[in-house]
Amino acid sequence: MGDLDELMRHLRAFVAERDWGQFHDPKNLAMLLASETGELVAEYRWMRGDESDARSRQPDVRARVAAEVGDVGLALLMLCDRIGLDPIAAMREKLRANAQKYPADEFRGRADRLR
Amino acid sequence: MGDLDELMRHLRAFVAERDWGQFHDPKNLAMLLASETGELVAEYRWMRGDESDARSRQPDVRARVAAEVGDVGLALLMLCDRIGLDPIAAMREKLRANAQKYPADEFRGRADRLR
Amino acid sequence: MGDLDELMRHLRAFVAERDWGQFHDPKNLAMLLASETGELVAEYRWMRGDESDARSRQPDVRARVAAEVGDVGLALLMLCDRIGLDPIAAMREKLRANAQKYPADEFRGRADRLR
Amino acid sequence: MGDLDELMRHLRAFVAERDWGQFHDPKNLAMLLASETGELVAEYRWMRGDESDARSRQPDVRARVAAEVGDVGLALLMLCDRIGLDPIAAMREKLRANAQKYPADEFRGRADRLR
Repeated sequence: MGDLDELMRHLRAFVAERDWGQFHDPKNLAMLLASETGELVAEYRWMRGDESDARSRQPDVRARVAAEVGDVGLALLMLCDRIGLDPIAAMREKLRANAQKYPADEFRGRADRLR
Repeated sequence: MGDLDELMRHLRAFVAERDWGQFHDPKNLAMLLASETGELVAEYRWMRGDESDARSRQPDVRARVAAEVGDVGLALLMLCDRIGLDPIAAMREKLRANAQKYPADEFRGRADRLR
Repeated sequence: MGDLDELMRHLRAFVAERDWGQFHDPKNLAMLLASETGELVAEYRWMRGDESDARSRQPDVRARVAAEVGDVGLALLMLCDRIGLDPIAAMREKLRANAQKYPADEFRGRADRLR
Repeated sequence: MGDLDELMRHLRAFVAERDWGQFHDPKNLAMLLASETGELVAEYRWMRGDESDARSRQPDVRARVAAEVGDVGLALLMLCDRIGLDPIAAMREKLRANAQKYPADEFRGRADRLR
């Protein structure tokens, strides 16, 4: 995959050039994330789950989903940058916690007990 | 920042060991993203915006926010992996589009016209 | 259905007795709504769409969904009350607008064109 | 406030005339609710909390918020109707549970301990 550090530099420059840091406190960025996530969810709301893989490959759907994934990802990165959190480290840590919380032997093939 | 490709390999192994791919169609992963985003939003809902930077540095808040950022990020990565989308490329592309949509001179210091 | 005005009076008293109005500005209530909606979505995220009707009738699922619907509804009512908006009138107005935007003959049996 | 039962009848007719019930399983309606909530959140994301009351009274903001409240409310009503849940009863029940969970004397003026 691409270079996250380079993207982060471009994202910071984009925000700085527009003097938008004043609007980007963590609370507002959490709301941005929620609204962008809502738009991504909208792409899948009327689609059956078992057709959502194939539909995600259709060029028009794919382009819209990619745009929404971009928005969600950028919002998450801006929040992480604002509060000085390394997103990769946060994900790695959470994955480790989940591996302990959901032992493979106990949760294999089961989603019903996930809370 | 950390290595996204390595994290992605660990994430795939985590899902495969639990045979959870059957639940992870794109529609379901979009819903997972929405529910995890809701939990991140919950951390900031009763906080004033102008105290949300300082509060994000408090160890207890920071730990909870990091855990929710981890969940949101993992959900987004799983969706991207499922539909074969490079999240970095999607963000880079969207950042480029936003730079054109919101010229710096026109939008400097203004959030009111963002839609 | 029950009496919305009576519920609204109880809800106002609940908030007043706890002196929570100071936290309930419209921005915060919108975030509350988002986090509660995330919890409702969580109930349905691992369920197939075509089993979600039957599953919603199972007592344990039904009880959890009812609790989340309650939370979402209360958040929406508190927001409406705070900004002086009649939720029934807002819904009625939106339904009228949707009836014009989506003529029955043109949209019958079609969800693909809903945006 | 207006008549919820009458609104519900109109909403059912609206859906029936478009034969949209086939798309409106509970899972999809939960996603609709999430996407509409995201749009409501978007209205408040760049606004300071302490100006969000005044801004909600501005005619243009008010009109957009009312439209989004309408969408969120209709999504919630459609979900309730689909699963045979009385939204007023669900809210009343949840308010009662919250009154027990958060005793007024203990939680007066405090939002920090709400989870």
